[in-house]
Formats: sequence, structure tokens, C-alpha cells
Amino acid sequence: MPRVLITETDGVITAVDAGVACPSGAVRLAGLTLPGLANAHSHAFHRALRGRTQVGAGTFWTWRDQMYELAATLTPERYHRLARAVYGEMVLAGITSVGEFHYLHHGPGGVPYADPQAMDEALVAAAGEAGLRLTLLDTCYLEGGIGAPLNEVQQRFADGDAVRWAARVDDVRRRFTGPQVMVGAAVHSVRAVPPSAMEVVGAWAERHGAPLHAHVSEQVAENEQCLTVYGCTPTRLVADHGLLGPRFTAVHATHVNDDDLALLGRAGASACLCPTTERDLADGIGPAAAMGEAGVGLCLGSDSHAVIDLFEESRAMELDERLATQRRGHHRATALLTAAAEGGHRALGWGTAGRLAVGCAAGLVSIRLNSVRTAGAAEHSLLETAVFAASAADVHHVVAGGEAIVRDGVHTRLDVGRELADAIAEVWS
Amino acid sequence: MPRVLITETDGVITAVDAGVACPSGAVRLAGLTLPGLANAHSHAFHRALRGRTQVGAGTFWTWRDQMYELAATLTPERYHRLARAVYGEMVLAGITSVGEFHYLHHGPGGVPYADPQAMDEALVAAAGEAGLRLTLLDTCYLEGGIGAPLNEVQQRFADGDAVRWAARVDDVRRRFTGPQVMVGAAVHSVRAVPPSAMEVVGAWAERHGAPLHAHVSEQVAENEQCLTVYGCTPTRLVADHGLLGPRFTAVHATHVNDDDLALLGRAGASACLCPTTERDLADGIGPAAAMGEAGVGLCLGSDSHAVIDLFEESRAMELDERLATQRRGHHRATALLTAAAEGGHRALGWGTAGRLAVGCAAGLVSIRLNSVRTAGAAEHSLLETAVFAASAADVHHVVAGGEAIVRDGVHTRLDVGRELADAIAEVWS
Repeated sequence: MPRVLITETDGVITAVDAGVACPSGAVRLAGLTLPGLANAHSHAFHRALRGRTQVGAGTFWTWRDQMYELAATLTPERYHRLARAVYGEMVLAGITSVGEFHYLHHGPGGVPYADPQAMDEALVAAAGEAGLRLTLLDTCYLEGGIGAPLNEVQQRFADGDAVRWAARVDDVRRRFTGPQVMVGAAVHSVRAVPPSAMEVVGAWAERHGAPLHAHVSEQVAENEQCLTVYGCTPTRLVADHGLLGPRFTAVHATHVNDDDLALLGRAGASACLCPTTERDLADGIGPAAAMGEAGVGLCLGSDSHAVIDLFEESRAMELDERLATQRRGHHRATALLTAAAEGGHRALGWGTAGRLAVGCAAGLVSIRLNSVRTAGAAEHSLLETAVFAASAADVHHVVAGGEAIVRDGVHTRLDVGRELADAIAEVWS
Repeated sequence: MPRVLITETDGVITAVDAGVACPSGAVRLAGLTLPGLANAHSHAFHRALRGRTQVGAGTFWTWRDQMYELAATLTPERYHRLARAVYGEMVLAGITSVGEFHYLHHGPGGVPYADPQAMDEALVAAAGEAGLRLTLLDTCYLEGGIGAPLNEVQQRFADGDAVRWAARVDDVRRRFTGPQVMVGAAVHSVRAVPPSAMEVVGAWAERHGAPLHAHVSEQVAENEQCLTVYGCTPTRLVADHGLLGPRFTAVHATHVNDDDLALLGRAGASACLCPTTERDLADGIGPAAAMGEAGVGLCLGSDSHAVIDLFEESRAMELDERLATQRRGHHRATALLTAAAEGGHRALGWGTAGRLAVGCAAGLVSIRLNSVRTAGAAEHSLLETAVFAASAADVHHVVAGGEAIVRDGVHTRLDVGRELADAIAEVWS
């Protein structure tokens, strides 16, 4: 197996050398070492729905009702404990950066907490304690459907108008920005944010050079509503109101058309596919190959956390297109891993992470090549083994910021299984 | 968490009691205990292709070329070592019975080995050593396509004609049948077995009351060829030539039509879906819900072993239908687990296995409910957690025939990872 020496100083890779002797003091990582992975779309609290939303049948919309029931139970304290456990699960899966699409801003009825940033504080603390780099995508959410009032739970998401959203996010940005935390912006969706407010959010992101994400065309029904009200697709709507650009990421983009893809591609924007969630919620199969051909950057997210495993997300991008087309070979293994690492980091505003190259942030993930899943890998197809055969359970070492956060498959700071069980029991109590 | 006391004598469950005190000497299994799972469709040697067949693009047919290249390298000794490791991986995944769809009967050029059952012997020994119950589905393979000659590798699969196949299988059956081994029959496919030969295979299975399997409609091209030559679908062809009945299993059945489903359902036959393989090979999505509605028994197989995880196969049956239909709720968790356990055992001729009930074979599989995947499970949705969130990596205890074959996630007899690496390196050497 080829060996490479990676040297890092203050969390930045300063040398990558192949074919050199192993100096004393170097840490030898067994198996295959990859750049840290980026989970570009997370709703951390959804982890508490895992398993529970599979009882009976249901639709995306009944699933959303269960999700709202859960959202209503969260306090900053509870969310801190839950998110820390979920972020711990992510780190164990080889994820070194997460994009938290965060809209649970306020207390019951939409009343701000005494500390208006209590929820942001909870998430920032959770990520720091779990050893995860965070892009907090502070989400603008104003309406309960196009032109519809907010329901009781949705009131917690809303700031009243986009100007107040922007003022609050200015405060969030000033308070939390740091070496491991970036504050970006998000438009929840065309359902929740009217065009005039989109423009305010887009201007905020532009002013700060910040990542800007939006849920786009996850559901056919969303496309239909948008067409009825605005006479265009969601992608065209966000384009016409100034959101597109190289810092923009369309989340899902499952039901986009060729014009939408051309708009995204010309803007140099990204699309974040969340294949395990889109399969779970019966959303459909996003046109990932066509996105790539249109010049859209690809990245991946575990979204609802029905599964937290970016190896599974990355292979699903290929495998689901095989199901849709009855053809193989839409994406090479290198492209799938690039989406899971470099593509995600780029979409989250960490342009120098997600590669094992000089000048890049030193995030390293090692996977076992001797588990029952990976044993027998050929040297000429190690990346194929990682993408198509490995799972989060094969991650044995994660290094971030010069620190081993996972060692021999164990989180060095948190008892993640125990914390998940306790935090989830608490939110449903 | 509810506790149940299961009493077994000589490998058979003699009592199942809830709400009783735990007697001294009882083994307490943590987490959730399920019946042993049945992997109803296996080609053990395909495990050596994992990862390797993902390089480049390719089709089902180029994949088959790689598979043939591998098949050409196998000797009874090599296949014994490889199959033992693969069966060990299955046991670690909670599988207690396997259906081996076995066609690699003879030496190079189709010359029988000095011991004509050397390959069967290899598989029977491998399963016994790994602690796995085996249904050896001895496969008739006569042609290299409808009316086409065998290629060099395919010669190893062939007995010349069905009468010679039957005579050989009679010997196999006499020699290997035992408490943990059953010999059944298989028609490879309509591509490889002409109708007159099918009738001989069907009669053999009927005479012995044995399970009878056939690959059916995995590929659209197979349907087209069958229609061109025989003027009907593969299912209609096998029906017209006497294969259907309650002991018949149609493997894949991805591209069956309503008439096919009615034929299978009326016959009380089963269908074995292999979702991870069908997704890998871009076969398409089989109509599992329609099969169930037509009265077809459902079971599952890991087939090419791109993945060995019946939890993943079972959830894929539901999740892939969600992708195909953009609707949720085609199969309940109990139905998915029944397919993975009772349905598979039935299709493999072990009618009293795969249930935790008095008189049934005592196969038990316990999965962790405190891993990062399963932590936070609700008592009212434990089965949903098992099906939709657990993986083979969560299996911590497997009991078969009164013996713990897996304890704390470790195979008690074999170093499976090491054996896989060695055996796969050997076959590609």
C-alpha cells in the first residue's frame, strides 16, 4: 500500500511527500486516508426522528408534521445536548465540517429568548465540543407557505421580516465568527420567503462574502405552487431575485429542469444532493450527472439524518442514477469523493479544506481496509472500495485542527451513543 | 425494554415466554433480538469483485465479463477458502441460512474434477465451518445464450444435458443432505436452459420436494430475447414448462408484468429481490409492492455481495419503491423483516426457521440499540429502527443450533476480515 507523509503546522498542511522514510514521531494511520468530509446540509434536530417516522405510511408532508412536533419541544439547553451528540456522530463518520441549515431561532410563539442568540450559541458550542467545523447557515423563514400565515411552530422560525432577520444575523455573525465557525445565510425556500425578502438575504450574503443556501425544488408540489404564483420555477425565481452566484448552493434540486441547470451552471453555483433523505422522503432522484455536465458544483448532505454516512450519500449519487437510467457509470469514484469532501467544503465557505494539499486545512479521515466490508480491496481500486463498500463504521481515525478527534473508531471527547440516547429521550419526554 | 425468555432444546425453540423472571443460567442478549436472517440468493465468489467492478463505467454485461474472469481462476481449494470467509461475513451480518445459487460445477473446459462433487464439497464445508445453514441450489446451465454455444468459462458450468445434470445432482443430494444442508435445484435462466431441460429440472425438484429457483427477468434484454424466440415472457415460459409452484422462487423478477405476477401469485411462488445488486448493476427497481398484492412471497438476497447486509436489502425494498413512485409506505417494517427472515427461510426449504416461535429452529440475531446508528430508538418503533437505521455492523450476537457463532460482534470461529483479505488476494493472484 503506498505511504504518504503529510506535515501540518497549526492545522494547515505544509508538505505532502510520497516515497519518503517515516520520521520518528510521525503518526501512522492504517488503511486509506482521505481528506475530511463536509456534510453540506444538516438539520441536527431531525436525528431524533430516526426510526420513529417509519411507523405507518405517510408522505413528505406528514413527515413534516412529526418534525414540527419535535421542533416544538426544543429549548436551547436540549438542542445543545442533542446537537452535540449528532455532531459527535458526524465526526465518527469522518465528517470534519457541517453546514447547519438553522431556522429554529426563537422561543415558543416566536418570542425571542432573553439571549436572542441562545439557539445559535447552543449549536456553536455543540460543534466546538464535538470537534466539528461549523458553517451556521442562518435561515430566513417568514411565511407558512406562499402568502400563508405561519403556524404555531413556524412562528419560532420567523423574524417578522427580512430586515429584522438581517439585523439579527449581523449580531450572530459578529459574535460567533472564528477559526472554526463561519456564519452564512439561507433562504428556507420559495414557500417560506417572498421575493422581496430573498433580495435582502442575498444582499446580506453578498455584503459579507458569505455562503448562501436555499432549499430548491425538493418536491414537485413546490414547483407547481411556484409556477402558479410566480409563473416560473423556484430556481428561476431565486435567480431573478439575485441569489445565484458562486457562493450559492441549491439544496436538493431534485426536480430542476434544463433551464434551471443552465442558470445554476452559468452562475458557478453548487447543488447539494441529500440522497438518503430524498430516498427516505420519496422526493425522487436528482439529476446529478446533468448537474455536473451543466457546470454545477456538487456536494452532499445527510439533511434529516435518517442516515449519517457520507460514503453512503456519495455512492447513492451514482447508484440512484443507475436506478433511474438503467445505466452504470455516471460518476467516477473520485468525483463522488470530491463532492463529499472538496465540493462540500467549498459550498460551506471553507475553500481551502477538503483536499490533501499544501496550504489546505489539515482534516484527515482514515478508513479501515480490513473490516468485513472493505477487506480484499485492490490497490488499483482503493477509492472505489471507499465509495462503494465502506461505511461510516469503517472510519477509525479523524484528525482535525492538529488533534485526533476520533481514535480507533472512538470519539476522544464524547460518549456519542450514550449522549444520543439521553438527548433523544429528553426531547421526547 | 420488554424482555422475553426463549427456551431451546437441540436447536428447536420449545418455549417463548414474556413477563417471566430471568432464570439463572439464561443468556441475556442486549438490544433487540430477531429471528436469524436468510440470504436467499448468493453467488459466494462474487464477493471478490467488490470495489473492483466500480472502476470506470460499464454495463451488466461488462460486469459479467469481469465475473467470468474471476470464475476462471477458482479451484475447489480456493473456492473453499473464499466461500468460508464470505459465509463468515454473512454470519456476522445476522444471516443464519444461505441459498447458494451454484453453477461452478466443473474444472477448466468443463472437465469434471476427479471428485465430481469437489466444488459442492467446498461450499458445504465452507458453510459448516462458518456456522451457516446451507441450501445448495445446484444450478442447471447448458447454453451460452438462447441457442448459443457456451464460452470457455461457461463450459465449467455445464453438464452437457439436463439428464446428466439430474444424475449428478442426485449424487450431490445423497452425499450432502443433512441437518444443516439441503440440496435444491436451479434453472440458471431462460438464456442458459432450453424449455425441454427446464422440464427435467422441474421434475427433479418435484420428485424430491426440493426448492427450485431461477433468475427471471433481471434485464430488459432477457425479456426481449425471450419474446423474440419463445413469444412470451420468461415467467410465462417457466410456467408453461412446469416450474411454478410453492417451492419455486423467481430471483430478481425486476421486469415482470402483471400477467407474470398473477402467474407467480396463483402458484404460491416466491420472488427473491436483491436490491443492492439490482441497484449496483443498474437492473432497475422490482415491483415488490405489486408482488405482495399478487400473493407472491417475498424474500431477499445479497446476490453479488457488493454489500452483505440484509437490513440494507430489506429497507431498500421499501426505499427504492419510494424512489420509483415518489410515495412512501409500500411495506411496513414487519413485512420487510419477514421477507428477510421467514420469507427467505421458506424459499430455501427451511419452513420452520425464521420465526421466534415454538417448534421453530432456534436462530437468534441480536442487534445493538446503543450504536450511533440505533441510539435513541423508541420502544414503539424498534422494528422500524432495525430495518431503517441498523446495519450489519450492529449485529452483536448470533445464535444458531444452540451455539453462539457471533459474540460481541466477533465470529467465534473465524478471523473473517483476515480470511477475506487472504482468499481474495489468492483468487486474483
